[in-house]
Amino acid sequence: MDNRPIGVFDSGVGGLTVLKEMKRILPAENFIYVGDTARVPYGVKSRSTITKFASQIMDFLMEKDVKLIVVACNTVSSNSLSYLKSRYRVPVIGVIEPGVQLALDRTKNRCVGIIGTQSTIRSHKYKELIIRQDRKIRIFEKACPLFVPLVEELLFDHSITRLAIKGYLQEFRARKIDTLVLGCTHYPLLTRALNRFFQGKVNLISSGYSVSLVVQDILSKKRLFSGRRKKGSIHLYASDLNENFRKLSRVVLSDSSVKMQLISFD
Amino acid sequence: MDNRPIGVFDSGVGGLTVLKEMKRILPAENFIYVGDTARVPYGVKSRSTITKFASQIMDFLMEKDVKLIVVACNTVSSNSLSYLKSRYRVPVIGVIEPGVQLALDRTKNRCVGIIGTQSTIRSHKYKELIIRQDRKIRIFEKACPLFVPLVEELLFDHSITRLAIKGYLQEFRARKIDTLVLGCTHYPLLTRALNRFFQGKVNLISSGYSVSLVVQDILSKKRLFSGRRKKGSIHLYASDLNENFRKLSRVVLSDSSVKMQLISFD
Repeated sequence: MDNRPIGVFDSGVGGLTVLKEMKRILPAENFIYVGDTARVPYGVKSRSTITKFASQIMDFLMEKDVKLIVVACNTVSSNSLSYLKSRYRVPVIGVIEPGVQLALDRTKNRCVGIIGTQSTIRSHKYKELIIRQDRKIRIFEKACPLFVPLVEELLFDHSITRLAIKGYLQEFRARKIDTLVLGCTHYPLLTRALNRFFQGKVNLISSGYSVSLVVQDILSKKRLFSGRRKKGSIHLYASDLNENFRKLSRVVLSDSSVKMQLISFD
Repeated sequence: MDNRPIGVFDSGVGGLTVLKEMKRILPAENFIYVGDTARVPYGVKSRSTITKFASQIMDFLMEKDVKLIVVACNTVSSNSLSYLKSRYRVPVIGVIEPGVQLALDRTKNRCVGIIGTQSTIRSHKYKELIIRQDRKIRIFEKACPLFVPLVEELLFDHSITRLAIKGYLQEFRARKIDTLVLGCTHYPLLTRALNRFFQGKVNLISSGYSVSLVVQDILSKKRLFSGRRKKGSIHLYASDLNENFRKLSRVVLSDSSVKMQLISFD
């Protein structure tokens, strides 16, 4: 039994969807979330800068005495994960490998789509990891740069969003993918619109759900579950407490007891 | 007469619309454009960082022996312009004041809309400068965060774009503005869609056009016009020569003789 909190961080607001899913699956745990909203987006930065920023956040979380850290950010997961894993003495879990594993488990026709930001798709990280385990799988990749601003405008199921989904994903539908990896932590907020577009016939693989399963497994194996009987707490930190962050955290977590605080990395 | 080039820079690709307009109005001039595409967007960065980055670009342009520099970036213009003007010995022109001046000249009903990115609108810079000259003018402001990604996806007049315009600007239409300041250098690419939405009844004030008039005036007063009789050249530099930059520069400038080169600020 271990009552220390779990740390979760992202370059911005997207990781809140991961936090939400973890909270759903591990309700008795305490969570500390850091969003580096003053320095978002990480996707355009060099690897050394990304690793430096991530280390600053990890140091902050370690001071808060977390028992495990989830890197709820595709850019950090694909650039800096092995460095972070080697440097910190708590388990560090990224968002990419759990998503890959779940996609491989779920696909039946072995025809899988991957969507993400331009930098994630350009890195081909998901594709590489999937093909490493199954050479014969058919993979379709598509960058969807409009999805993040649409989510940040809270247009989760708006007619604009439906047009954007059609524009980006009609080829995936034509190719009859049966599994779609949401390679960006913003995208789970488009679940309803995506399900409608695919008529519910495609498995949507969200980082939040796949990571939560992995975390649950580690807590179980290492006997790190909290012994708390009541609901755990959520504490949010952001390097810029802008309207965007407040808005999305309200919408995503729909929990008014969440504490919110400014953090500085200067 | 002065055959030195004119320098133009932006945090990314948006300033290309300013370059295009300057080229149209001053065809015999040579232009050097710098887009800091590796470090875009500037809007989320601190003022000191923005000034540092802008100075690095200005130093590069000075080494290229430019006769005048246009800061084709709203973020730099609103944060660092007076510092840059005082530090460099060539004329330095930002995008905000020329746009304000042209809007004041053009409006008849003194009912003006201002659109831009979240950081530009939050700064209220355009509004302040307009009101300083005419206290009775009615100003409506609106951040339009979807417009930049729509432009970068080349969806200039797509049904998605039309829906976004309607969503953001129907209040402006209801208020019967007669002048709209495009407070972001990406937005002139939406001119056709905006004109259709406003049925051609609203003056669209683009930075490119208003800045070009100011530059023309300075060149004339200081006798700095090029003596060239043929078309001048365009040389583009970008800190990341990504697909986005190549694509937009092709579309915006539609000139295959443009030279393109990588530049590093490390």
